[in-house]
Amino acid sequence: MNALNGAVNRCLYLDQNHQLTVREKPVPVPGPGTALVRIAANGICGSDLHFFKEGRLGNFVVDRPYIPGHEASGEIVSLGSGVRDLAVGDRVVIEPGIPCGHCAWCRAGRYNLCPDVVFLSAPPTDGTLCDYLVVRADALWRMPEALSFQDAALAEPAAVAVHAVRRARFAPGASALVVGAGPIGLMVAQAFRAAGGGEVVCRDLIEKRLQAAEQLGARRAGLDDKVEADVVFDTSGSAKACAGLFAAARPGGCVVQVGWPAGNLVSMNIADFLDRELDYVAVNRYANAFPAALQWLGDGRIQTGPLVTHIFSFEQSPEAFAFSAQHPADVIKTVILNQ
Amino acid sequence: MNALNGAVNRCLYLDQNHQLTVREKPVPVPGPGTALVRIAANGICGSDLHFFKEGRLGNFVVDRPYIPGHEASGEIVSLGSGVRDLAVGDRVVIEPGIPCGHCAWCRAGRYNLCPDVVFLSAPPTDGTLCDYLVVRADALWRMPEALSFQDAALAEPAAVAVHAVRRARFAPGASALVVGAGPIGLMVAQAFRAAGGGEVVCRDLIEKRLQAAEQLGARRAGLDDKVEADVVFDTSGSAKACAGLFAAARPGGCVVQVGWPAGNLVSMNIADFLDRELDYVAVNRYANAFPAALQWLGDGRIQTGPLVTHIFSFEQSPEAFAFSAQHPADVIKTVILNQ
Amino acid sequence: MNALNGAVNRCLYLDQNHQLTVREKPVPVPGPGTALVRIAANGICGSDLHFFKEGRLGNFVVDRPYIPGHEASGEIVSLGSGVRDLAVGDRVVIEPGIPCGHCAWCRAGRYNLCPDVVFLSAPPTDGTLCDYLVVRADALWRMPEALSFQDAALAEPAAVAVHAVRRARFAPGASALVVGAGPIGLMVAQAFRAAGGGEVVCRDLIEKRLQAAEQLGARRAGLDDKVEADVVFDTSGSAKACAGLFAAARPGGCVVQVGWPAGNLVSMNIADFLDRELDYVAVNRYANAFPAALQWLGDGRIQTGPLVTHIFSFEQSPEAFAFSAQHPADVIKTVILNQ
Amino acid sequence: MNALNGAVNRCLYLDQNHQLTVREKPVPVPGPGTALVRIAANGICGSDLHFFKEGRLGNFVVDRPYIPGHEASGEIVSLGSGVRDLAVGDRVVIEPGIPCGHCAWCRAGRYNLCPDVVFLSAPPTDGTLCDYLVVRADALWRMPEALSFQDAALAEPAAVAVHAVRRARFAPGASALVVGAGPIGLMVAQAFRAAGGGEVVCRDLIEKRLQAAEQLGARRAGLDDKVEADVVFDTSGSAKACAGLFAAARPGGCVVQVGWPAGNLVSMNIADFLDRELDYVAVNRYANAFPAALQWLGDGRIQTGPLVTHIFSFEQSPEAFAFSAQHPADVIKTVILNQ
Repeated sequence: MNALNGAVNRCLYLDQNHQLTVREKPVPVPGPGTALVRIAANGICGSDLHFFKEGRLGNFVVDRPYIPGHEASGEIVSLGSGVRDLAVGDRVVIEPGIPCGHCAWCRAGRYNLCPDVVFLSAPPTDGTLCDYLVVRADALWRMPEALSFQDAALAEPAAVAVHAVRRARFAPGASALVVGAGPIGLMVAQAFRAAGGGEVVCRDLIEKRLQAAEQLGARRAGLDDKVEADVVFDTSGSAKACAGLFAAARPGGCVVQVGWPAGNLVSMNIADFLDRELDYVAVNRYANAFPAALQWLGDGRIQTGPLVTHIFSFEQSPEAFAFSAQHPADVIKTVILNQ
Repeated sequence: MNALNGAVNRCLYLDQNHQLTVREKPVPVPGPGTALVRIAANGICGSDLHFFKEGRLGNFVVDRPYIPGHEASGEIVSLGSGVRDLAVGDRVVIEPGIPCGHCAWCRAGRYNLCPDVVFLSAPPTDGTLCDYLVVRADALWRMPEALSFQDAALAEPAAVAVHAVRRARFAPGASALVVGAGPIGLMVAQAFRAAGGGEVVCRDLIEKRLQAAEQLGARRAGLDDKVEADVVFDTSGSAKACAGLFAAARPGGCVVQVGWPAGNLVSMNIADFLDRELDYVAVNRYANAFPAALQWLGDGRIQTGPLVTHIFSFEQSPEAFAFSAQHPADVIKTVILNQ
Repeated sequence: MNALNGAVNRCLYLDQNHQLTVREKPVPVPGPGTALVRIAANGICGSDLHFFKEGRLGNFVVDRPYIPGHEASGEIVSLGSGVRDLAVGDRVVIEPGIPCGHCAWCRAGRYNLCPDVVFLSAPPTDGTLCDYLVVRADALWRMPEALSFQDAALAEPAAVAVHAVRRARFAPGASALVVGAGPIGLMVAQAFRAAGGGEVVCRDLIEKRLQAAEQLGARRAGLDDKVEADVVFDTSGSAKACAGLFAAARPGGCVVQVGWPAGNLVSMNIADFLDRELDYVAVNRYANAFPAALQWLGDGRIQTGPLVTHIFSFEQSPEAFAFSAQHPADVIKTVILNQ
Repeated sequence: MNALNGAVNRCLYLDQNHQLTVREKPVPVPGPGTALVRIAANGICGSDLHFFKEGRLGNFVVDRPYIPGHEASGEIVSLGSGVRDLAVGDRVVIEPGIPCGHCAWCRAGRYNLCPDVVFLSAPPTDGTLCDYLVVRADALWRMPEALSFQDAALAEPAAVAVHAVRRARFAPGASALVVGAGPIGLMVAQAFRAAGGGEVVCRDLIEKRLQAAEQLGARRAGLDDKVEADVVFDTSGSAKACAGLFAAARPGGCVVQVGWPAGNLVSMNIADFLDRELDYVAVNRYANAFPAALQWLGDGRIQTGPLVTHIFSFEQSPEAFAFSAQHPADVIKTVILNQ
């Protein structure tokens, strides 16, 4: 491991006082079945910003310093014992949910529901905003050659979108309404077409997002434009939007809930749901989705250009968080580059 | 058609003043592609009682006399031209929704969503509470030999249950909670096991229904008993019950909505829905469900004994409606026999 | 119907002596539920050529003159009574299989298996190689604006491909091997990617077809190049190819049979099939596939350029058949334009 | 572990000379994540007999002594560290295929296709014909209270049947033809009905098996009786039977291959396959099937009585193998009881 002699491992820590600090830590050593990854780029997720601003999300509380970030790409610099199918030098992205591999959900192929899943960046578990990270080998996915580290950092939100369109039930050529045109909504709009869907309409309040949607080939709709589609994706989590989801779906169609509502209870129109005999499916992260996410990023079916509105260096990470938290209408996706 | 010489066709009419009257009408003559059925038995559906009491249901209004009833069995007494696969003397049940056969939904196998479907007994369309009815041949299903006309009259609610368990997504041996142990709930409890499900718990307020559930092999639960199951069926339409449906489903499970809520808007816990990554599916009548309903009635996997609490003769039809409407805790299912 | 005053209806007849003749017939008049279509373009299908050369295919025998052709686009020039959703002037393609709408298969959404289906151009039923044709309204599909009549004439083989990829079971980003790069193979290669598939390899003997495959974004493989893919489509019907299909599929993958073998019996490696626990699915025409076929033709996901190697005028139809039959290595798809 | 002081661990060894010998070995000690099981009963599988007679099966060769057997039930007598959800005294069955939990197939829920799966009793891996065995905790499934160890020993072939009916695609009430009425065929016949299927016909040459089928509620058919069913299961592996499988399936139906052919190549009628647009699915052991197998054994939907024709004590194991190998028409399933 000579190549790492003297290597510095900068890590971004978020503490219980909403402070972000870059600290240097030792470069970790990979154990059996793991690999050491030199991180190249990270996207900032809305959940990272939420922990930064609020100090908690659901049952997860920031009660001591931890490393945020779970949308990362990088390069393998050393391997632990027993790792097949990966090599030093491989360019990879990290799947941040590490399941147990043995429970009923893991065995049934729905490992995102594993009750023992370890999710990188869910406090107090450290995430990926650092220079070097040891990751279990089966959580690393090789990148297509054509893909840059910066674009690959968006493989994680793309995987959410792949999982969402896979959970959706639709026939080739179906139409979609995507409610909410933030990073996930724009990913879903693209993944839906990549998976065989037809016309896509994106609905949002924010002009910048609607423009991004149009750049990506979708039509735009304001909150009051009436739209009917075979599949309706909610990525907004807005209670108001949810109340109208079923009315926007064609009979026999499907509504996919991706966005989390602020409050748990949402008023839904069950008569619309029954009358149209809809399917309403929930999306909780992803399972078996990274390979397609990477492929579609690599062949251009999913583009990141209109999404990545802001780029910061690793040293500027605290500013990246602060700016992104303060300018929600201006920022779609912020990426932090380690170099 | 000598056999019908002098035949009397008693018809039960419900009018806009909530009055039920038996009148004699001519025996109709079957046209091309139809058959004349001598009706033997009818179940009374909750929707029939609703029209009787309220004069309307959803967009359907009783604004002139019409014939209620859509759970009917009988015998073919004559055939129109061009009917294959059926014969005079065949014992049959009637599928009361007659779809167009040409629209997108019909062509895709979801004919229950046909926008031009004609549903027998949806006012002003006449239903099956009469002695003789002409029905399109493809809406008639031959009964198993072992099945009585009385039991076969419950093929329609059994078809709802077959459709519900088919819409549900579950693995062999899965567990179920059935909320609401009325006729549909008791049918669903049985159909779920018939289709490969395992343990079933029925939840209801009414003691008689819980006893019926136990007779049919299910466990009982009161409103406050905590239950967790792979599949949760709501047949109650209760807003209070709906609010708790998602919390009762295991992660990765399925919630099936069969019951219609009184109000359209129901408060749902979307956080539970997302956290468990559930499927929530609506059931609107049935498609392609009568053959299995008849088979499972015929081989004893679906039993009607504990459901049929009251039987009336055709002449007593007005009393049958009045009694059933007045004694909801005592009546599970009322059947009217033509003879 | 003044516009049709004096209109000439040229019809191409194929007789039991393998002779093709253009004759003029009266312009037909649309009855209830039908439309009169002025045909603009026809693709020639392999089955048309087979009837031309052999006089029979399966149970269908050319024992009197009939009109071949079932890949047609055109314009509606008049409507029978009771037709909604279509208008004079609509540019349409014709779905040539007309199902009964009432049997078990029609009701279940698999109307291509309707035992009473009427297929245009299956002798003695007349096909679409004429100027004017009356077609049932639900067999007509409106073309996207951007699509030419010539391209739309390939909607029928595109529908085969849409159906094939829908019958296939695969995850987003899966890889495919397409055995046989004729018109159907080239359509399947494109439809697979349009439906979410990833890398596609086409295998064929004929250089021209392999070049077309490459133009459409697939990789090429010769008969002896070892390929392993998640989905293997056979469009060749070659017994030799079929023997190796299972060995080319990855464990858990899917093999899709589209091509018909010359003999009925084919030697298959069942040990490979079991060892990999494959799905092997048959494709028999299509159901519910024209809308997606037209959409993907319209938005460029399915291209016809590299397929349409030869174009003839209607008057040259006999030459079109003769040339296509004589030059199988040179002709991929021949189109006949009515104007 | 006092209870095991002085415990004897009898093990049955099969060697490369087709000799079976009972030897005493030390009782093993469970490591982390495993449990020590005192074996109570074992079924003898056809593959065990094949290794006994032929010394090999597929790529697996008996080149040194190993322990056969993989259909076992028993009781947990001690636990290694870190085992939750199991307790000493639990009555369990053993799932003999131990997958890696990390590969693409494991992560997708098809862990039976794991390339690194370890299968107990596939030589040289020891199986379950012993008194004490250490097994990974996630390969143990608790038995229903009502189930005897003897019946539970058939959970493994029942799991094959559960997996087979789950791989099959059929609607509630569908009919089935089961070709081959040995232990697997008789399990499939029962599992098909347990999973919602309707009429079942079993085809076999051996009278004893046909009688067992009838006892279990199926109809019987000889080799030449014409049968048509929605689902056709082959459990015979007979090349002659396979040639007729597609002709026995109704259009749109499904054929399920469970039996392995003696030779790899089998002649299949692809024209029948295409004409009916069938699904043909392979079954390779099972995944996620033991819970339903145990439940259906426990509630009587799967019965073992007509299958278990012969019972031997552990000391008689060599005789059990010899007798079973010599009397294929008389033995359906042999069980060896440890006590």
